[in-house]
Amino acid sequence: MVDESLMMQRMSGRKLSGLIAATYTPMKACGDLNLDVVPAMVEKLLNDGVSGLYVCGSTGEGMSLTTRERQLVASAFVDATAGRVPVIVQVGHNSLREAQGLAKHAQQIGADAISATCPSYFKVANVQSLTLCMQELASAAPETPFYYYHIPMLTGSSIDMVDFLTQADEAIPTLVGLKYTDTKLFEFQRCLELSNRKFDVVWGCDEMLLGATATGARAAIGSTYNLAANIYRKMTLALASGQLESARQWQSKSIEMICTIGRYPFHPAMKAILAMQGLDVGPCRLPLESLSQSQVASLRESLEQIGFFQWSEDSSKPSDA
Amino acid sequence: MVDESLMMQRMSGRKLSGLIAATYTPMKACGDLNLDVVPAMVEKLLNDGVSGLYVCGSTGEGMSLTTRERQLVASAFVDATAGRVPVIVQVGHNSLREAQGLAKHAQQIGADAISATCPSYFKVANVQSLTLCMQELASAAPETPFYYYHIPMLTGSSIDMVDFLTQADEAIPTLVGLKYTDTKLFEFQRCLELSNRKFDVVWGCDEMLLGATATGARAAIGSTYNLAANIYRKMTLALASGQLESARQWQSKSIEMICTIGRYPFHPAMKAILAMQGLDVGPCRLPLESLSQSQVASLRESLEQIGFFQWSEDSSKPSDA
Amino acid sequence: MVDESLMMQRMSGRKLSGLIAATYTPMKACGDLNLDVVPAMVEKLLNDGVSGLYVCGSTGEGMSLTTRERQLVASAFVDATAGRVPVIVQVGHNSLREAQGLAKHAQQIGADAISATCPSYFKVANVQSLTLCMQELASAAPETPFYYYHIPMLTGSSIDMVDFLTQADEAIPTLVGLKYTDTKLFEFQRCLELSNRKFDVVWGCDEMLLGATATGARAAIGSTYNLAANIYRKMTLALASGQLESARQWQSKSIEMICTIGRYPFHPAMKAILAMQGLDVGPCRLPLESLSQSQVASLRESLEQIGFFQWSEDSSKPSDA
Amino acid sequence: MVDESLMMQRMSGRKLSGLIAATYTPMKACGDLNLDVVPAMVEKLLNDGVSGLYVCGSTGEGMSLTTRERQLVASAFVDATAGRVPVIVQVGHNSLREAQGLAKHAQQIGADAISATCPSYFKVANVQSLTLCMQELASAAPETPFYYYHIPMLTGSSIDMVDFLTQADEAIPTLVGLKYTDTKLFEFQRCLELSNRKFDVVWGCDEMLLGATATGARAAIGSTYNLAANIYRKMTLALASGQLESARQWQSKSIEMICTIGRYPFHPAMKAILAMQGLDVGPCRLPLESLSQSQVASLRESLEQIGFFQWSEDSSKPSDA
Repeated sequence: MVDESLMMQRMSGRKLSGLIAATYTPMKACGDLNLDVVPAMVEKLLNDGVSGLYVCGSTGEGMSLTTRERQLVASAFVDATAGRVPVIVQVGHNSLREAQGLAKHAQQIGADAISATCPSYFKVANVQSLTLCMQELASAAPETPFYYYHIPMLTGSSIDMVDFLTQADEAIPTLVGLKYTDTKLFEFQRCLELSNRKFDVVWGCDEMLLGATATGARAAIGSTYNLAANIYRKMTLALASGQLESARQWQSKSIEMICTIGRYPFHPAMKAILAMQGLDVGPCRLPLESLSQSQVASLRESLEQIGFFQWSEDSSKPSDA
Repeated sequence: MVDESLMMQRMSGRKLSGLIAATYTPMKACGDLNLDVVPAMVEKLLNDGVSGLYVCGSTGEGMSLTTRERQLVASAFVDATAGRVPVIVQVGHNSLREAQGLAKHAQQIGADAISATCPSYFKVANVQSLTLCMQELASAAPETPFYYYHIPMLTGSSIDMVDFLTQADEAIPTLVGLKYTDTKLFEFQRCLELSNRKFDVVWGCDEMLLGATATGARAAIGSTYNLAANIYRKMTLALASGQLESARQWQSKSIEMICTIGRYPFHPAMKAILAMQGLDVGPCRLPLESLSQSQVASLRESLEQIGFFQWSEDSSKPSDA
Repeated sequence: MVDESLMMQRMSGRKLSGLIAATYTPMKACGDLNLDVVPAMVEKLLNDGVSGLYVCGSTGEGMSLTTRERQLVASAFVDATAGRVPVIVQVGHNSLREAQGLAKHAQQIGADAISATCPSYFKVANVQSLTLCMQELASAAPETPFYYYHIPMLTGSSIDMVDFLTQADEAIPTLVGLKYTDTKLFEFQRCLELSNRKFDVVWGCDEMLLGATATGARAAIGSTYNLAANIYRKMTLALASGQLESARQWQSKSIEMICTIGRYPFHPAMKAILAMQGLDVGPCRLPLESLSQSQVASLRESLEQIGFFQWSEDSSKPSDA
Repeated sequence: MVDESLMMQRMSGRKLSGLIAATYTPMKACGDLNLDVVPAMVEKLLNDGVSGLYVCGSTGEGMSLTTRERQLVASAFVDATAGRVPVIVQVGHNSLREAQGLAKHAQQIGADAISATCPSYFKVANVQSLTLCMQELASAAPETPFYYYHIPMLTGSSIDMVDFLTQADEAIPTLVGLKYTDTKLFEFQRCLELSNRKFDVVWGCDEMLLGATATGARAAIGSTYNLAANIYRKMTLALASGQLESARQWQSKSIEMICTIGRYPFHPAMKAILAMQGLDVGPCRLPLESLSQSQVASLRESLEQIGFFQWSEDSSKPSDA
């Protein structure tokens, strides 16, 4: 049973902070889940100083998993994390009834929060409709904080997020904020500052984290924090201490890394790099395309040329920097 | 057990023909399935002269149902139809593994064919990738003909269909054709005529059926064949007998009807009209928005003004015309 | 001076019919105009049975010409045609004042009609705005029939054309119809039939002319009528005489031709084919890319393989067919 | 005659800095140019501390003016500015030949730089094509620095700007940088840092200037610097002195202002505000829609509610701050 006072505490103002890894879902070569790897993944991430996990999102290929698999993955990460950092489970689904089942399950296993995209086969065309959808979904986990996952590039729904937060605030008791995955810093800033900074609005574009942090971001969810959290941490530390030029150099390294990876199918390449770093999380599933062996080799070479493996080995934590 | 000789027969050239209704999924006011209505729906459609059923497609809100619900709906329609016309079950899903489960189930219950959209959260960007996805999916129902469901407006994948058919022909043994839901008649015609008319390419835009039939369409799948199959049948009969002007008038009535409905959320309005026709199939689910009572009233009034209820009452079959 | 009674006659119901060539603008190798070729172009087209010319449209690279060049091109075609068939001059421009100047000039030189896209740098977002724009433009040629040129793929404005015709009918006294260049046959049919078939709605997608003609099109404007008007004429004759299968075969040839050309930059390839047919109209201007010599050679080879030069040599007029 | 040594100096590394106003084009109520207002506009802007002018861009409705008008507007601003700050003239046009004429004219009147969008009726689809277009255009002003104007939202061309700068660097001798009007900070940062910071990449989204400045922007071109340059200057000063929270508050005011204006047709509302500030620059031209009198009144009221007129009156220059 959920401790309601804990819930109330959770909801009353504690916000996410720092770098939250959007976790990959480990798979075997055949595409089946390989959950035995989860504990090692979690230890690596915690060791890298990551301050939270976002499970079954786009990075985790949540939409490509079966409902049962999504539950197994969520449980594996919640269990392995054991409360050391918050775990947010992404439960969005074209079927809001399936999403409700996932939300309920996430609450049962003790996820710290749920998050969800809107349905995207049928496009959600206005703020009223989005609010109704997310209200229905979130109601299935009435004691778990809810973050709407705004990623218009994938959902095709580019509802104004200030309008959504304003309207959904009353309709969805568990709404606490957004995972904001778009490049419109001005909309992000408005969401951050809305209603006396009521909402927890988490930045979702790793390659623009410097600009977002300058604009007010305090937490970020992304895939490249799996690989190289340290360069982002150094960047935010530099910014906080007024060393703008240094901060830019760290962001610049992040962009160089992301552009290098982006010459290949992105998430499959990311999984290949995790394997290079000693963590075999297997391939991605279709519709994401796999890298050939020669692509993996040329990716490694490109990363070596930009010095990536030096940066990523240096996993010094904030306290060490 | 599936009779393989029957299967071989199915695959060896019999194509769909006539008007195939993309069926609605009957629901209760609370949004739960209401499968008791299925037999009456099927009898109405057969009585209207419909020559096939397409179940759990966009019209049937397949993507908004749970996996279990999709199986129940498919079974209900297959059972109620009892082999009198072909039943095609749409099994597309963002998770190809879920889609495989649905495909396998459809084969087990004796569906005449399966059909599927590609995944659409992650966009399928090239023909090779689409072929791999559909190959994986279709392999789960190796004895059931497969129709790729091309609907770029909803999936965001506008792969050239001639390229797909050409490449997928070898890769997918069960591929028989397409449900083609786009307005590019020239692409449709190329698909129809490809490889000596090998493929069964079924037209999916009711409001352009005249142009498509002139161009070579022999079968069409659509939602408005649930309401007014007779006007389309009269149209195709007129065209076949060289009465072009008469054919245009019937298509014109179809367009007038569709425009009237299109002033409201489309599928919820369609369900409301089925209720007006005596078949209570309930509301749609979110993310589709429901019609208010006053919207239903004004919809009815608009339909009366254009004489819709006269057309739809005249359910004369081809043989009577 | 314009004969007003002629104008009144023009406006009172005579509509365009048959195949209207969207003419290419002949250029020298350096990109300068080469207007000496215009008379030969016009004779070829009239000999091919074309029933009108559409000058300075997308095919004619109107937007890539200077204002002065557009006037020279329009004059050259009006002069060479000498009233034998209608000449429509496309005068759309991002600057409505430039467009007004072009419209006025077209009227002065005796163009039979003007036509215009809306501005497209700033997108026209609603029907009211489109009506105001076209009203301003058309008012500069108050005695010349006006066809709005609907080509949403290039202008980015996908205003509903039924709404536009309805609203613009009162606002623009010279409005007579549309050049409809989109694939939505149902919208085209509604426009055709609107207000008791008041408007002259001309079809703009050569590769779908069969479906459009079946749906009611009586005139078409397109680029491939420069090359192979005869196959389209045979198609429409076949349709008119009830030979649907034959009509499809002619449309099929058109599609095969267009797909072959479409493997190259389209209009530059079209100009290269005109040169193969003995009419050197030179290259296109940037931003359209030129074909290399080897591309021209492989294009010719591909066209030979599909028998294109046999079809295009057979320039039998309707009376001969 | 152009002083070539001055030209060489210009090209050898001096970059734009600070806030550059994208100027409005003053018009009479009838839509004709009202160039008598230009000197007062320029004095106001210089008094506000603006460090450059960008003439005939999107803000200046360059595309809605005739070629002759664009020349008159450019001359008026160059003359009124009299060398006190750089004046950049935007010369993009669908017709590259018209653009060349404008570029040549801009050089003749002594514009400090030219800038241009690519043609946008025909979409520029790849970096090679964009380079050829801009090479042709820029060659008409061989002694004037050239900034490509990247604004994919209006041109429909979203070519990667790093690829363009890399390829165009050799092809276009006068290329010095970009006006970057998109929200992708990571692409902007890559362009800034490319080839050892060779290019002058100027930020174009006023509402994201804080993030862009943190990321490395040193100059910005925008429309709201006409109204409220001081709030942006205070923002950049705060950032430079490490007062991030203060910088955010100034950006927040900018966003509030822009959102208020954005409830109306944007540029017409901006012109209405300039009139409220005592500078009557008249209405916009179609296709931009005019504000009604009641819209102007409600706009003024909204701006008063957010305190806009207090901010904008405080025109303290950097030295006073």
